[in-house]
Amino acid sequence: MPELPPYWLRDNCPCAECRDPRTGQKLFQINDLPEDLAVAAQAEIEGNLEVLWSDGHRSRYPLAWLGAEDEGDGRTEAHKRLWVAADFRRGLPEAEWEAYVGDPAEQAAVLSAVRRSGFAVLRGVPAVEGQVRAVAETFGYVRTTNYGELFDVRVEPDPNNLAFTSVAIAPHTDNPYRDPVPTLQLLHCLENSATGGDSGLVDGFKAAAILREEAPDDFAVLTRTLVPFVFRDRCTELRADRPLIDVDALGRIREVRFNNRSISTLRGSSDALAAFYAAYRRFAAITLRPELQLTFRLDRGDCLIFDNTRLLHARTAFQQDGHRHLQGCYADLDSLASTLAVLHRRTAALDAVAELFAGEGAGEYLGEAVTMAEHMLQAAAAAEAADAPPHLIAAALLHDVGHFQGALHGRDLMQGQDNRHSDTGAHWLAQWFGPEVTEPVRLHVAAKRYLCTVEPGYRARLSEASEYTLKVQGGPMDEQQAAAFAELPGAADAVTVRRWDEQAKTAGAPTPDFEHYRPLLASLMK
Amino acid sequence: MPELPPYWLRDNCPCAECRDPRTGQKLFQINDLPEDLAVAAQAEIEGNLEVLWSDGHRSRYPLAWLGAEDEGDGRTEAHKRLWVAADFRRGLPEAEWEAYVGDPAEQAAVLSAVRRSGFAVLRGVPAVEGQVRAVAETFGYVRTTNYGELFDVRVEPDPNNLAFTSVAIAPHTDNPYRDPVPTLQLLHCLENSATGGDSGLVDGFKAAAILREEAPDDFAVLTRTLVPFVFRDRCTELRADRPLIDVDALGRIREVRFNNRSISTLRGSSDALAAFYAAYRRFAAITLRPELQLTFRLDRGDCLIFDNTRLLHARTAFQQDGHRHLQGCYADLDSLASTLAVLHRRTAALDAVAELFAGEGAGEYLGEAVTMAEHMLQAAAAAEAADAPPHLIAAALLHDVGHFQGALHGRDLMQGQDNRHSDTGAHWLAQWFGPEVTEPVRLHVAAKRYLCTVEPGYRARLSEASEYTLKVQGGPMDEQQAAAFAELPGAADAVTVRRWDEQAKTAGAPTPDFEHYRPLLASLMK
Repeated sequence: MPELPPYWLRDNCPCAECRDPRTGQKLFQINDLPEDLAVAAQAEIEGNLEVLWSDGHRSRYPLAWLGAEDEGDGRTEAHKRLWVAADFRRGLPEAEWEAYVGDPAEQAAVLSAVRRSGFAVLRGVPAVEGQVRAVAETFGYVRTTNYGELFDVRVEPDPNNLAFTSVAIAPHTDNPYRDPVPTLQLLHCLENSATGGDSGLVDGFKAAAILREEAPDDFAVLTRTLVPFVFRDRCTELRADRPLIDVDALGRIREVRFNNRSISTLRGSSDALAAFYAAYRRFAAITLRPELQLTFRLDRGDCLIFDNTRLLHARTAFQQDGHRHLQGCYADLDSLASTLAVLHRRTAALDAVAELFAGEGAGEYLGEAVTMAEHMLQAAAAAEAADAPPHLIAAALLHDVGHFQGALHGRDLMQGQDNRHSDTGAHWLAQWFGPEVTEPVRLHVAAKRYLCTVEPGYRARLSEASEYTLKVQGGPMDEQQAAAFAELPGAADAVTVRRWDEQAKTAGAPTPDFEHYRPLLASLMK
Repeated sequence: MPELPPYWLRDNCPCAECRDPRTGQKLFQINDLPEDLAVAAQAEIEGNLEVLWSDGHRSRYPLAWLGAEDEGDGRTEAHKRLWVAADFRRGLPEAEWEAYVGDPAEQAAVLSAVRRSGFAVLRGVPAVEGQVRAVAETFGYVRTTNYGELFDVRVEPDPNNLAFTSVAIAPHTDNPYRDPVPTLQLLHCLENSATGGDSGLVDGFKAAAILREEAPDDFAVLTRTLVPFVFRDRCTELRADRPLIDVDALGRIREVRFNNRSISTLRGSSDALAAFYAAYRRFAAITLRPELQLTFRLDRGDCLIFDNTRLLHARTAFQQDGHRHLQGCYADLDSLASTLAVLHRRTAALDAVAELFAGEGAGEYLGEAVTMAEHMLQAAAAAEAADAPPHLIAAALLHDVGHFQGALHGRDLMQGQDNRHSDTGAHWLAQWFGPEVTEPVRLHVAAKRYLCTVEPGYRARLSEASEYTLKVQGGPMDEQQAAAFAELPGAADAVTVRRWDEQAKTAGAPTPDFEHYRPLLASLMK
C-alpha cells in the first residue's frame, strides 16, 4: 500500500457520518478536519482498508475502490470517437422515435452516440410544432435564448440572422457569443420540399486534432487567443471572449467555437493579429476539407441532435421552389450525460438483481421448501395472476431482496449507502424505484404482524417458519401499533404483497423467470 | 500608421457587402478571402483610412475605430470590483422592485452591481410564489435543472440536498457538477420568521486573488487540477471535471467552483493529491476569514441575485420556531450582460438624440421660420395635445431625425449601418424602436405626396418651403401609387404624423423640451 495523502483519504471516507447516504454529498467541510490529521493505525481486513484516525474517526475503504481507475466526465477528446465522413458510410447513428421512447437500450444507444460521435438522428418523430421540446425533454431541459425557447429555421421576411434566409451557411457552431454557450442543439425537420437545403456536419475536434498534428504552433495560437464573439440586434447585445479551440488543464481539446459571422474586432499587436489570422485561416481550411464534410438530408420527421461544443453544422443553399422548415432548440450536455448514466445505472442494477436471483437466490429460504428466488418469483406470479398493477408486481418480486447479502455490499459502498443500518432491501431499491415500490417492501414484515392482529385466522395459516420469524420480529402488533401502521404510506399495498408472500412457498410451482419481469421493472425505474 | 495585418483589416471591413447592416454579422467566411490578399493602396481621408484591396474591394475604416481600446466581455477579475465585507458598511447594492421595473437607470444600476460586485438585492418584490421567475425574466431566461425550473429552499421531509434542511451551510457555489454551470442564482424570500437562517456571501474572486498573493504555487495547483464534482440521486447522475479556480488564456481569474459536498474522488499521484489538498485547505481557510464574510438577512419580499461563477453563498443554521422559505431559480450572466448593454445603448441613444436637438437642431429648418428642433418639438406637442398614443408622439418628435447629419455618422459605422443608402432616420431609429415608431417616420414624406392626391385642398395649405420640397420629392402620387401607399404598414399613422408636421412651423410657439419626452421614448424602446 503506497503512502496515501491523509486529507485525500479522509475526504473520501464513505461512512454515513461523512456522506449523506442518499446523495453521496459530503456532510463536512474540508476545513472541519484538524490541522494535524494523520492515520493512527491501519489494517487490511477482508478486502477493506480499515483506518483509525488521529482524531478518533474510523473509516473503511474497499481495496477495489482504492485502486479504481477514473473515467472522467467524458467531455474532452479523450472520450470521443473522432471521425471523418467515411466513418459513416454504412449509415448515421440513428433510431426510430418509437423505439427510442419505448426501449431504454435504444435511448441509451442514441445518447451514447451524441456523447461519443457528437450527434445522432431520430427518425419518425411526429412532425408537429413543439415536438422538438418533447425530444429535448427526454434527456434534459430546453435552454431559452434570444431566439426563443424554440426557434424556426425557415425563410423570414425580416431576418435577424442568416439562418433565417435561404443562403448556404458554412460549417459553424451556434451562439458563440454566449457564455455559457448552449452545448447541445436539436433541429427537427417539419418540412423539406425545397431543392437543396441539405445538412452538413464536421467534427470540430477532429479538425482541431488535425491542426495540432499539422501545425502545432497554429493550434497553440488558437487555444490561447481570446476571440470576441458578438451578436447584436435591437434587444440583444451579447459578447463572449473565448478561444476558437479550448483545451482543459491537461491540454485535451474540450470545446470548439467557430463562426466567422460573429467574430468582432480582435485587438492586439500586429504580430499577434497576423499569427492569429494565419492560424485561423489554416483551421478554417481544414474544416472545409471534403473528407471531413458529412452531408445528409433531413426529411420530415427527422430530428438531429448534436454537440454544439464540438460539431460544426452547415447547410447548402436552397431554392424557394418548396418549403423548408426546421424547428430547433438548445439544451445541454450535462443533463444528457446524466440521463445516459442513469440509464446505464438502471441496466446495471437490473443485471445485478438478475445475478442475485441466479446466484444467491438459489439458496435456502428460511427453512421453507423453496429457494429465495423461487419464493420471490412465485409471489410475483401471484401478483400477476391477480392483475395487480406493475408497482405491486415489482414489490412482490423484490420484497425479500434485503435477504441478499450481495445487494448490500461492494459496489455502492462508496456512494455512501448506509448498509449497516438497513435491515431491508427498501433502502437499496430506493436508488432506482419510487416509494410505490419501496414502501410495500419496507413494510412487508410489519404487515404480517399487522395482519395477525386485525384478521382473525390469519396467524393460524402461517407456515411454520413464518410463525417462528413472527416471534423474532416482535409478535403481533398491539392495537395502537396496528392503527399507526394502517396510516403509513404504502401500508395497504404492503398488506396485499404480504398475502402473496405467504402463498409463495409451493415447492416446484412453475413461474416465469426473472427476465420476464425486466421490462416491467425498467418502466418503473423512470 | 503601423503595418496592419491584411486579413485582420479585411475581416473588419464595415461595408454593407461584408456585414449585415442590422446585426453586424459578417457575410463572408474567412476562407472566402484570397490567398494573397494585400492592400493595393491606402490613404487617410477625412478621418477615415480608405483601402483599395488587391482583389478590387474597397474598405473605409474610421481612424478612431482603428485606435479604439477594447473592453472585453467583462467576465474576468479585470472588470470586477473585488470586495471584502467592510466595503458594504454603508449598505448593500439594492433597489426597490417598483423603481427597478419602472426606471431603466435603476435597472441598469442593479444589473451593473451584479456584474461588478457579483450581487444585488431587490427589496419589496411581491412575496408570491413564482415571482422569482418574473425577476429573472427582467434580464434573461430561467435555466431549468434537476431541481426544477424553480426550487423551494425550505425544510423538506425527504431532502435530496442539504439545502432543504435547517442545518448551516458553509460558503459554496451551486451546481458545480454541471457544465455549463448555471452562472446566476436568484433567491427570493417568501418568508423568514425562523430564528437564524441569515445569508452570507463571500467574493470568491477576492479569495482567489488573496491565495495568489499569499501562496502563488497553491493558486497554480488549483487552476490546473481538474476536480471531479458529482451529484447523484435516483434520477440524476451529474459530473463535471473542472478546476476550483479557472483562469482565462491571459491568466485572469474567470470562474470559481467551491463545494466540498460535491467533490468526488480525485485521482492522481500521491504527490499531486497531497499538493491539491494542501492548496484546497488553504483556499478554504481564506474563504472563511471573517473579513470576507458579508452577512445579512433576507426578509419577506427580498430577492438576492448573484453571480454563481464568483460568489460563494452560505446560510446560518435556523431553528424551526418559525418558517423560512426561499424560492429560487438559476439564470445566466450572458443575458444579464446583454440586457445591461442594451439599457446603456438606449440611454446613450437618448443622450445622443438630446445632443442633436440641442446642437444641430438649433439650425435652420428648410427655409421655415422655426429651427429643426422647434419644428419636431411642435409636432410632438401637437400629437400630445391630440391625446395620441405614445408611439405616435415619438414618431412626431423624431420624424425628421434623418435631417441630422450626426445621427448618421461615426459611432455606428462599425456596427455595419448602411448610412449611404438611407435617406431617412427610420433605419437609424430601428436600432432602438419597433416599426410602430419607425414606419410613420419612414413614410412621412410619402404621406405628403399621398395627401396632396387624395385630399382636396391639402396641397393649397402647404407652406412655401413644403410646396418646394414636394416637387423635389416627386410631386403628388398618381392614383396607383396612392392606393399602394395606403396598403403599407404604418401608412395611416404616417398620414396622422404628417398633419402634425405641417402644423409645426409656428415661430416662437412654446413647447416642452426634449427631456420631457425621454421617459416616453425609454418605454417605447423596450
